Amino acid sequence: MTFIQNKGEFNRLTYGIAATWLAMGLDPEQVVFYRQSDVPEIFELHWILSCLTPKGLMNRAHAYKAIVDQNEQTGMERDNGVNMGLFTYPILMAADILLFQSDQVPVGKDQIQHVEIARDIAEEFNRSFGNTFRLPTFVVDETTAVVPGLDGRKMSKSYNNTIPLFAPPEELEKRIKKIKTDSTPPNEPKDPNTSSVFLLYKEFAKPEETERLHGRFQTGISWGEAKQELFKVMNRYLEEPRAKYHALMADPDRIDRILAEGARKARTMAQPLLEQVKTKIGRFR
Amino acid sequence: MTFIQNKGEFNRLTYGIAATWLAMGLDPEQVVFYRQSDVPEIFELHWILSCLTPKGLMNRAHAYKAIVDQNEQTGMERDNGVNMGLFTYPILMAADILLFQSDQVPVGKDQIQHVEIARDIAEEFNRSFGNTFRLPTFVVDETTAVVPGLDGRKMSKSYNNTIPLFAPPEELEKRIKKIKTDSTPPNEPKDPNTSSVFLLYKEFAKPEETERLHGRFQTGISWGEAKQELFKVMNRYLEEPRAKYHALMADPDRIDRILAEGARKARTMAQPLLEQVKTKIGRFR
Repeated sequence: MTFIQNKGEFNRLTYGIAATWLAMGLDPEQVVFYRQSDVPEIFELHWILSCLTPKGLMNRAHAYKAIVDQNEQTGMERDNGVNMGLFTYPILMAADILLFQSDQVPVGKDQIQHVEIARDIAEEFNRSFGNTFRLPTFVVDETTAVVPGLDGRKMSKSYNNTIPLFAPPEELEKRIKKIKTDSTPPNEPKDPNTSSVFLLYKEFAKPEETERLHGRFQTGISWGEAKQELFKVMNRYLEEPRAKYHALMADPDRIDRILAEGARKARTMAQPLLEQVKTKIGRFR
Repeated sequence: MTFIQNKGEFNRLTYGIAATWLAMGLDPEQVVFYRQSDVPEIFELHWILSCLTPKGLMNRAHAYKAIVDQNEQTGMERDNGVNMGLFTYPILMAADILLFQSDQVPVGKDQIQHVEIARDIAEEFNRSFGNTFRLPTFVVDETTAVVPGLDGRKMSKSYNNTIPLFAPPEELEKRIKKIKTDSTPPNEPKDPNTSSVFLLYKEFAKPEETERLHGRFQTGISWGEAKQELFKVMNRYLEEPRAKYHALMADPDRIDRILAEGARKARTMAQPLLEQVKTKIGRFR
């Protein structure tokens, strides 16, 4: 909502994300998998936490500051293009985290600050109204690889260098053929560790396959053949998720049912804590 | 919540305000009388509207700017003492106004900007997602009198010059005796229109009584007698509301029942519109 203000696109992205998680193996029986907007308790807590959040904390949020910096560099007004959803977003995240008494929040490095802000707000609430929220800690997996895109840079929609996970095999093959390689002749040794083809292969192959391709890079393999090997393991890995994804996208009612059941579970977890919070602030006698 | 972060005080103020309205004659059968926090739809809409509100609009809100000005004058940090509830409060007001398709919003002059902001946000939503919200207009009653306090200044808690509406008669009389008067001797003519005693009398007396006291001011009346007249009409006017107020405050369950019924009505009104809003932004297919 802070960026997409178009019904069709909003819808496509929402269902697409839900179907991706489910297709890649997330089991809604094992986790509480819900759509944020189905849990009104989050928005109630968001308001309550707003009243305990100093504005200075938001002024220092990275995403906001990045826009202000850019505006200042280009001679625009500081807050040009900033809507209040974007500015207050860290409080919504905090509500999301705190409402479920989360202990650990797995994040990428760029999201550490969000967990720190949630923790600050929780501490402020606990100080003012007595111990209520667990203090969350962030967990960053340092071994997470940066996935290279077609041009060797980090794979990212904004670089337009992606290989869509659920593209049909022909499209997948075509994309893989576009991966940038150097001009080393077919029979000469190649460095696997600087090759996007090898780095991607590693993510989808079995360890013994990775070892074997590593050897072939060192003795010499043509780029065409290497890409063919990559296509084989990627396609093998993605065949089943791809079918699941398209089946789900063709049956959005099923996604809705899964998310509705998740929301039911989430609300059952959230309501007693929100009740407690409201009692502490004075909503109830 | 933006100011009171103490359960007891929050509670006392909430029940006190509800009981005051009811005691003074507001009929919950005729109006939808609810407690904001009982209507979660307001907080859901608050978030949605946040995403359509440029931050610049909040930067210009009077209440926020007044604090920033004061901070700058006293050499403090601009946002010192500003919490995010206070900063985003105009959006919560907008949600309150727009969720009920309000046409006219009766306000004091200092709240005109709130209605203007609600209107701006409604226009922005209608532009982005098609006509949805009615555009509210503010209504200011220019004839509303400024009620003078004990010291002649505007009656205000922050001046500590109030006459509490529901104080017992003895306390009421004592307070009235404290109203500041000049030293005109008893039998000399007095100007009714500059006298707090007369201006207060006007608010509680019948027109013919007001006319009569007006005459007596001009021919000469002692301050003591004038204050006695004021006490009589005020006490007559407040006797019944005072009894109602104290009966309600002694039975908070009754207040809760009235407010719960109001919230039920408010939610029944709000839900179809919120559903419509969510459909337009893409929450539903």
